[in-house]
Amino acid sequence: MPDRRIVQRLQALLGERVDTAPESLDAARADRSGHAAPSAPLAVVHAGSTEDVQAVLRIAHETRTPVVVRGAGTGLAGAANAGAGEIVLSTSRLRRVREIRPDDLLAVVEPGILNGELDEILAPHGLWWPPDPASKDISTVGGNIATGAGGLLCAKYGVVRDAVLGLDLVLADGRLLHLGHRSVKGVTGLDLTSLVIGSEGRLGVIVGATLKLRRIVPGSPCTITATFPDVHNAARGSAAVTASGAEPAIMELMDARSLAAVHALLGLPSPASGVAQLTIQTDGPVAADEAARIADVLRAVGGTVSVTDDAAEGEELLRIRRSMHAAMASLGTTLIEDVAVPRSALPDMFDEIARIEREYDLVIPTVAHAGDGNLHPNFIVDGPVVPPHVWRAADDLFRSALRLGGTLTGEHGIGVLKSRWLAEELGEDQWDLQERIVRAFDPAGILNPGKVFAPRPEGTHA
Amino acid sequence: MPDRRIVQRLQALLGERVDTAPESLDAARADRSGHAAPSAPLAVVHAGSTEDVQAVLRIAHETRTPVVVRGAGTGLAGAANAGAGEIVLSTSRLRRVREIRPDDLLAVVEPGILNGELDEILAPHGLWWPPDPASKDISTVGGNIATGAGGLLCAKYGVVRDAVLGLDLVLADGRLLHLGHRSVKGVTGLDLTSLVIGSEGRLGVIVGATLKLRRIVPGSPCTITATFPDVHNAARGSAAVTASGAEPAIMELMDARSLAAVHALLGLPSPASGVAQLTIQTDGPVAADEAARIADVLRAVGGTVSVTDDAAEGEELLRIRRSMHAAMASLGTTLIEDVAVPRSALPDMFDEIARIEREYDLVIPTVAHAGDGNLHPNFIVDGPVVPPHVWRAADDLFRSALRLGGTLTGEHGIGVLKSRWLAEELGEDQWDLQERIVRAFDPAGILNPGKVFAPRPEGTHA
Repeated sequence: MPDRRIVQRLQALLGERVDTAPESLDAARADRSGHAAPSAPLAVVHAGSTEDVQAVLRIAHETRTPVVVRGAGTGLAGAANAGAGEIVLSTSRLRRVREIRPDDLLAVVEPGILNGELDEILAPHGLWWPPDPASKDISTVGGNIATGAGGLLCAKYGVVRDAVLGLDLVLADGRLLHLGHRSVKGVTGLDLTSLVIGSEGRLGVIVGATLKLRRIVPGSPCTITATFPDVHNAARGSAAVTASGAEPAIMELMDARSLAAVHALLGLPSPASGVAQLTIQTDGPVAADEAARIADVLRAVGGTVSVTDDAAEGEELLRIRRSMHAAMASLGTTLIEDVAVPRSALPDMFDEIARIEREYDLVIPTVAHAGDGNLHPNFIVDGPVVPPHVWRAADDLFRSALRLGGTLTGEHGIGVLKSRWLAEELGEDQWDLQERIVRAFDPAGILNPGKVFAPRPEGTHA
Repeated sequence: MPDRRIVQRLQALLGERVDTAPESLDAARADRSGHAAPSAPLAVVHAGSTEDVQAVLRIAHETRTPVVVRGAGTGLAGAANAGAGEIVLSTSRLRRVREIRPDDLLAVVEPGILNGELDEILAPHGLWWPPDPASKDISTVGGNIATGAGGLLCAKYGVVRDAVLGLDLVLADGRLLHLGHRSVKGVTGLDLTSLVIGSEGRLGVIVGATLKLRRIVPGSPCTITATFPDVHNAARGSAAVTASGAEPAIMELMDARSLAAVHALLGLPSPASGVAQLTIQTDGPVAADEAARIADVLRAVGGTVSVTDDAAEGEELLRIRRSMHAAMASLGTTLIEDVAVPRSALPDMFDEIARIEREYDLVIPTVAHAGDGNLHPNFIVDGPVVPPHVWRAADDLFRSALRLGGTLTGEHGIGVLKSRWLAEELGEDQWDLQERIVRAFDPAGILNPGKVFAPRPEGTHA
């Protein structure tokens, strides 16, 4: 069916919710990764209900039109970028909180609500949803689930997969399924809820989520900062904290280049050359004791340590870490990478990054969620296109992480930017099996085609 | 191929690891559910290595012979029961701990190691693996993973799904896959690790597991017992504890019949008629404060409460709960049920059980992991066959749990005993999708056929 007819069919059913304004179509080509589809999609449909989602998918399925689901468009791997011939199905208007149950520690929400917005709604009930991607004020809960998002608090409080009990999922042909359960335990059949988490729009459209909540942790956090003469020793410091048995809520590492860039952005005095920093928070009833213990561990491995139990001062210290994206943006276009390694391998991974900087003549400012071994090396490039030698350096970075027992992506996903490397990590047999599972959900292949499981060019990464 | 030839082929390759002793074949027909396959399997193969598992599956795949994977045979849903024409693939000799990494809080183990045995090995490292099914001293880690086991500590410390990072899986055709990762975070491709957890032998054979460990909780637990005039009020008590924001490690509920049966078994004085009991443990650095707070909550809702910080005394009190299975066995053959409901629905679920007792003229002694809403109603029957009117009562029980927002099985699985009700909870569309996923893993359908996704008799549970 010609594109124009498909848009007319959508308009006939959904009226003004079908948006064909050129600026809307153009915005849907890109996410926050810097990557953009080469041309614009057919239309953006702003679904107002589950029924709208089903209606769009029935038309798409019948006409074999590809559908790209999109929340706030804050992804960092291009998974929600839409191009020629594709319908963008936006869930950002589906933002109701359907239910909050303090007695069962759960909430049922629609996918378009922002993560930060949800926490504001939950706070008066004494509750919060632990996943806290750095984007939480601008990213949707549905997008967090679709990417399997992480954040700063994961070592202690878990990732998205630990915080979702059930999902309402519209299949490619428009049928609605209820996956999972409302009880703490439940092993009825296969765990499709977990399978859909992190599936990046390939298995279905999330239209509702039953979230597992926690009580807000009482008391005020303690914040520790520790500086080290170089990043290798800072990473040894974070590994020593993990090995000590301490369980900080947050443990962030900034290398010298990151620290210097943020200090420059915020107008703070320049740190000494080469100096890297850990910023750690403890919380809960024994926050102060644990902070003191962590400070001892860090001093023993050569850190210069300070501790505060003032919450406002702690927030100020964390602001340095939170300003990283802005600092990078001030330097140029950024390709934010996202490898994760076992925590003991952090020092080695930083050595690999230093080697890659030398070999490819690049600077790669890097921050890490050191508590969970997730690194964000930032490749700074001029303009929107990542040049080939930067991709070669990224390729080296990915292979280094895999050699150290790590993974391509800790929390951003594969999207379009990393699909070339997917089989490298999974192996060909698992890649094929995963693709068969995608086809079991979506035999016609209309959901986010080409994302994650892209057809691989012969011989490039076999 | 005739059965005799298949056994000969296995023997040619695997020698004495192929066990055809009549008592071994007979033992493999049944698990701890009381259910047994009507006749005996072809052979029990005691795999000594991953290569053995692969060899068995290659032969089975080529000859289209069904394979039933079996650990310690302690399941409660019949999922590992094997019958005519089937090969039993036992993983109970694969029991090495390949790696313990205190710095990364992980261990890599083979599936046949017992859960309790693993904890003894981990303890000198200051580590433990949280899943603690009541069977932990006799059940294998592989079986715990295959069923998605729970236990007593789940509300605070999670279920198996929260405690596994990766799996080595042999597919039906003998190929070996490495699923998951060793890092805390990882979102590369679909989360097949989570999908395999709880899949009850339908997707592949687990030959290795990368487990997420915790540090042993320091200090000594506090134990609270509270008696109530009836089970409804005891359930209100546990719901009040959850709603208060307290986070006990253990919160177990015993109804009057359970409590009386255990007291009789252990030679303790009989409790007053109708009295039900909560047994609660708090742990960690604020165990005593939390116990005091919980005691206040329970007194406020009418409980008669006592608290001890003596660990030995606490263990003695928990022994009453742990003696439940033995007490039931002393009454007859037991069909142990396993529904789970949202925690706020516990009082209503106990009312439903009382109604079912009246309507079907049965006694149904019930214990509950009240901290997570998982109930184990026990149907006591004479002899190995569950009579039809007991199944009708169980059917009523399942539907009641589903009406209250619950699930058929919290931690035991579907196996053969609950496959009739599976579509009731999942819906036809999800049932079909799950079955397609099974076929994506095992197109020839040789892995545990008929379990979980049994062909459903027309019109019985549509």
